[in-house]
Amino acid sequence: MSAPTLRAAVAGATGYAGAELVRLLHNHPHASLRLITSGTRAGQELAEIYPSLHGIYGGELVDIAELDPAAVDVVFLALPHGASMEFVREHADAPFTTIDLSGDYRLSGPGVYEEWYGQAHVHAAGFEHAVYGLSEWSREELPGARLVANPGCYPTAVALALAPLLAEGWVEPSGIVVDAKSGVTGAGASAKPGTHFPLVNDNFHAYGLLRHRHTVEMQEALGRASGGPVELLFTPHLLPVNRGILATIYARPTASLRGDDLAALFRERYAGCPFVQWVDEPPGIQQVRGSNQCHLHARFDERTGTVLLLSAIDNLVKGAAGQAVQNMNLCFGLPEESGLDAIPLMP
Amino acid sequence: MSAPTLRAAVAGATGYAGAELVRLLHNHPHASLRLITSGTRAGQELAEIYPSLHGIYGGELVDIAELDPAAVDVVFLALPHGASMEFVREHADAPFTTIDLSGDYRLSGPGVYEEWYGQAHVHAAGFEHAVYGLSEWSREELPGARLVANPGCYPTAVALALAPLLAEGWVEPSGIVVDAKSGVTGAGASAKPGTHFPLVNDNFHAYGLLRHRHTVEMQEALGRASGGPVELLFTPHLLPVNRGILATIYARPTASLRGDDLAALFRERYAGCPFVQWVDEPPGIQQVRGSNQCHLHARFDERTGTVLLLSAIDNLVKGAAGQAVQNMNLCFGLPEESGLDAIPLMP
Amino acid sequence: MSAPTLRAAVAGATGYAGAELVRLLHNHPHASLRLITSGTRAGQELAEIYPSLHGIYGGELVDIAELDPAAVDVVFLALPHGASMEFVREHADAPFTTIDLSGDYRLSGPGVYEEWYGQAHVHAAGFEHAVYGLSEWSREELPGARLVANPGCYPTAVALALAPLLAEGWVEPSGIVVDAKSGVTGAGASAKPGTHFPLVNDNFHAYGLLRHRHTVEMQEALGRASGGPVELLFTPHLLPVNRGILATIYARPTASLRGDDLAALFRERYAGCPFVQWVDEPPGIQQVRGSNQCHLHARFDERTGTVLLLSAIDNLVKGAAGQAVQNMNLCFGLPEESGLDAIPLMP
Amino acid sequence: MSAPTLRAAVAGATGYAGAELVRLLHNHPHASLRLITSGTRAGQELAEIYPSLHGIYGGELVDIAELDPAAVDVVFLALPHGASMEFVREHADAPFTTIDLSGDYRLSGPGVYEEWYGQAHVHAAGFEHAVYGLSEWSREELPGARLVANPGCYPTAVALALAPLLAEGWVEPSGIVVDAKSGVTGAGASAKPGTHFPLVNDNFHAYGLLRHRHTVEMQEALGRASGGPVELLFTPHLLPVNRGILATIYARPTASLRGDDLAALFRERYAGCPFVQWVDEPPGIQQVRGSNQCHLHARFDERTGTVLLLSAIDNLVKGAAGQAVQNMNLCFGLPEESGLDAIPLMP
Repeated sequence: MSAPTLRAAVAGATGYAGAELVRLLHNHPHASLRLITSGTRAGQELAEIYPSLHGIYGGELVDIAELDPAAVDVVFLALPHGASMEFVREHADAPFTTIDLSGDYRLSGPGVYEEWYGQAHVHAAGFEHAVYGLSEWSREELPGARLVANPGCYPTAVALALAPLLAEGWVEPSGIVVDAKSGVTGAGASAKPGTHFPLVNDNFHAYGLLRHRHTVEMQEALGRASGGPVELLFTPHLLPVNRGILATIYARPTASLRGDDLAALFRERYAGCPFVQWVDEPPGIQQVRGSNQCHLHARFDERTGTVLLLSAIDNLVKGAAGQAVQNMNLCFGLPEESGLDAIPLMP
Repeated sequence: MSAPTLRAAVAGATGYAGAELVRLLHNHPHASLRLITSGTRAGQELAEIYPSLHGIYGGELVDIAELDPAAVDVVFLALPHGASMEFVREHADAPFTTIDLSGDYRLSGPGVYEEWYGQAHVHAAGFEHAVYGLSEWSREELPGARLVANPGCYPTAVALALAPLLAEGWVEPSGIVVDAKSGVTGAGASAKPGTHFPLVNDNFHAYGLLRHRHTVEMQEALGRASGGPVELLFTPHLLPVNRGILATIYARPTASLRGDDLAALFRERYAGCPFVQWVDEPPGIQQVRGSNQCHLHARFDERTGTVLLLSAIDNLVKGAAGQAVQNMNLCFGLPEESGLDAIPLMP
Repeated sequence: MSAPTLRAAVAGATGYAGAELVRLLHNHPHASLRLITSGTRAGQELAEIYPSLHGIYGGELVDIAELDPAAVDVVFLALPHGASMEFVREHADAPFTTIDLSGDYRLSGPGVYEEWYGQAHVHAAGFEHAVYGLSEWSREELPGARLVANPGCYPTAVALALAPLLAEGWVEPSGIVVDAKSGVTGAGASAKPGTHFPLVNDNFHAYGLLRHRHTVEMQEALGRASGGPVELLFTPHLLPVNRGILATIYARPTASLRGDDLAALFRERYAGCPFVQWVDEPPGIQQVRGSNQCHLHARFDERTGTVLLLSAIDNLVKGAAGQAVQNMNLCFGLPEESGLDAIPLMP
Repeated sequence: MSAPTLRAAVAGATGYAGAELVRLLHNHPHASLRLITSGTRAGQELAEIYPSLHGIYGGELVDIAELDPAAVDVVFLALPHGASMEFVREHADAPFTTIDLSGDYRLSGPGVYEEWYGQAHVHAAGFEHAVYGLSEWSREELPGARLVANPGCYPTAVALALAPLLAEGWVEPSGIVVDAKSGVTGAGASAKPGTHFPLVNDNFHAYGLLRHRHTVEMQEALGRASGGPVELLFTPHLLPVNRGILATIYARPTASLRGDDLAALFRERYAGCPFVQWVDEPPGIQQVRGSNQCHLHARFDERTGTVLLLSAIDNLVKGAAGQAVQNMNLCFGLPEESGLDAIPLMP
């Protein structure tokens, strides 16, 4: 192959997003995974934590301090927010590209960050050149980017569905309702009272009412797409499944809406986008599990004057590690599908 | 006890709602289950179909033709819609009270029935005296009723949440969004391609977009509560659990809304209602599984001007058989909680 | 009713077995729940921890020190092992009956306890009068007992299946294999890494190989039934469900075995036992969920010379709280089914 | 690459094993999927049935009659037993290699087939050259084979665990107990009463007691490995998960057993086998989900004189389609891991 082989590192490889990066990069045709780090498990093989790796991947975790900036081309940060900005600040002059999966550079600046994340931002300068990596909407900014803010899982599902309509002015930018449901891996790899199996199994509930951090990320991402402020109400729920997000979205049409043409609008907007599919039936999360796909469906309800959107992704793939790899591909001019074209499990 | 012992029959006892009626009536202190029927399994013990009954309940299924109208005080119809109206027409002069769990008498008349159910109604006269049995809102009509239309599962969850606000005029009667999620028992006891375990497990999707029959039932039920037309958009989803409905509802406030008083409103409206509880946290469906409770929570979002409502029930209990027993209690002047006061499984 | 009303207390009501005792005692016709205790949640309502109790049970947790020995007839100890024996020692002269759900008094003496539990026993005197409460096999010892050692969940399922065969000498007392599978509530109410939802869902594995503590309890319980030493190998597994144990048991026949008469043997042995049922099909754990039933099935395989036994219980009911209530009933001469006769959820 | 590109066909691509073959062959570096067939869905895209394929795989189903024998090098038969032998008989002289995933050629001859499958075998000649494709034990017979009988899912898990011990004479060839548990995809892609979600979820039971067809397949496969007759009792159970088999196996040691060396035996026997791993902890089915791996663990219990074996596979991969692709690789001299080296989902 003529494409260069990128030297990659994953910081925070023991979390779910980090481990998913390892899964995707391991067989990537144009990347070589050189380093995986962990703050608490350095010295162990990753296979001790994820036994599915036995006999397949023998990488050993090291402390992040062992990262040689000259020895990598791209660093994926699968760290908690707060830790990411420390790393980016320290490596501001490093030659590698950073793809940050935390929330530290997703918003428009330190002020809104502090308002929604409840802590001060230590590296305001980062916002100046961070590219919000919603791949299908950042195609022009990504090539050559040095810092990519990888979108949140919910915002990815929601923005891919709403952005075409807002960009066309077919729906009102306010009064939008986002009712979203996520699998439990979205809550991370650490056991918590709220992820105790007997309390999740056979259960379903909403959480984070009114003020979930992804609200503002969605609003800003959609604001960029539509060129004006967007206001929405976001209600996340916890599904008794491991992976997957389904966002059910309700918006009010403008006079511009051509209800008959919803499928055409999405097909046209995402033509040439290998990871966004219009589907003719309401998508289920199982059909995108393990893949980088986003499946979209929409309907206009004349009776109530509502546009109904359905968007399904795998929260760990298109909602985290997969989109991060897709962004790497776009940053470095690789084929967009590199490392992301496996058929997912069925069922 | 001085209360009379009602003689009860369950028609269609092999379905999930029918079997749930057997469960609840078996230990009812003021009812005696005299007859259980099945169109296809007559001659079998119900325990052959539900092995949990071995050693507990030895009732044998008979054909519905064996029903002696003079030998029962109350007949529960857990039949498909269409079959119920045939039965009611044939027994129009029978001395017993009929509690119909199908959709045949829930709507305002034969016209709207035919529009949403896609079939002619054979017994328009039934609508004249049928009482819509949303127990907490039909307290005055139920005593002495001869025909009760037991509400649908989704409409029960939704109407209990929205009715107080609409009755007070605190939210607009249009522009309402109902995003609801149900366990698989809502799809019935018969295996279908859509209930094949591998396709439901680890999955989640919407269905019945825009035109689910429960839409009109909700609108009419809420219209009665508010005294004017109500318009809403209803989107049901299938959860990978056996039981439970969670409805997440979005409504626009009127000038009358006192956002701080949502809890007070619900507590006051449902004071004296043993089966509706205000809860301070977003309710999960597990906490009402197996019980006749409806758990409600609400929040007003000033930022977007939205009232958010959460309503959780067990679709087979408060959403079907439990409310039917509650309605029987109210029809006959029995204590409302009779037969319905067991603590549900935890977890 | 003429039966006395027992005054009951549950120590450790926030754990799963403790909460299940509350569920069962709340509606018990001959018992009144006077006190529920918690070491860490005193002052809270139990409904704050189990929201299913809202509007049904308003009991408040107190510290166990508030127990007035003269104010209760029966105390259920749903405490960790170690804590139970401290309590029993301290209340050795108290007038109430103690039903201990921990492992502290299940074995034959302090020596074997220390060997398998890895800690010293502080109250050897307790073993002298403790009755091992496998209800169907302790009918004569239970009336009037002051200390009941409530059996473990796995031993209950296994002993009910094997004891009739061993007692008749139909199977060899050695070479027995017990392959058992349990729902996650068996691991307790506290979140642990091993009960993190994503690691249990879609998973299944064995644990506690060769040396699980229930091994010796099974051997001793069966030794009492058969009048000689019993040796078995026990392998527990973790099922991705909340409740239920299925034990699949393999034993070698003796010359006495009449393979055709397995059903007859079980039916005869458990005639008059309301909570043990022979079933004609392999039992599933769902059919005993929430009930105090044990469902048994057996087959003799001539080809390999093996007796195959299947035994299903709900680990929290017949395997813990339900059998404890059954034992209370038997201790005090109440009808055995009191408080335990509700039909369980289907499905 | 210098390896040849094989032209492959999948007959019966709509079933779970067939669809899994499509998943694995789609990205196989040395195979090209030329044809997928269906008896009932010809003319449809496979993506209409498995929506996860949208945008990834656009293959259209055709009738099997459209297969041009000269246009393929290998045909995978994912057909029901009975249908496979018809196909093989008809194409006895065709130039391609057939890998049959049904049970039609797994046993030693038509007599035993008819005994256990209850139907006549129409193509006894096939047994003469069929190779039983337990890859790690058929390495010498597979290269150049024209008909491969791909092993059953349970026999694969069991034979990989037991064969090394039997081949070494470390365990007795009789008195073996196989207690195995499978996910629901093992029951096929068609909805049946027994796969109705509410009856599988929260449930667990045994089935096929004493006479499951895989019993004889295991016995014969192990007989070949050990050079003498093997007798075992096999009890399958249904797990509420989509994929995975865990076999828990109990065998009696011979005097030759070196209990300390179990790990060494397995490591040595499977050195150079990329798809069989000794693991130090009891394996869970999740850790092999989606991969072609078999994870093995074993313990010798001196107390009871028992060898305990644990074997975990994905029933659709190593238990069906994955092993079939592995066998194709071995038949044609391709690298054994070709197309099978992706890291599976975690979790």
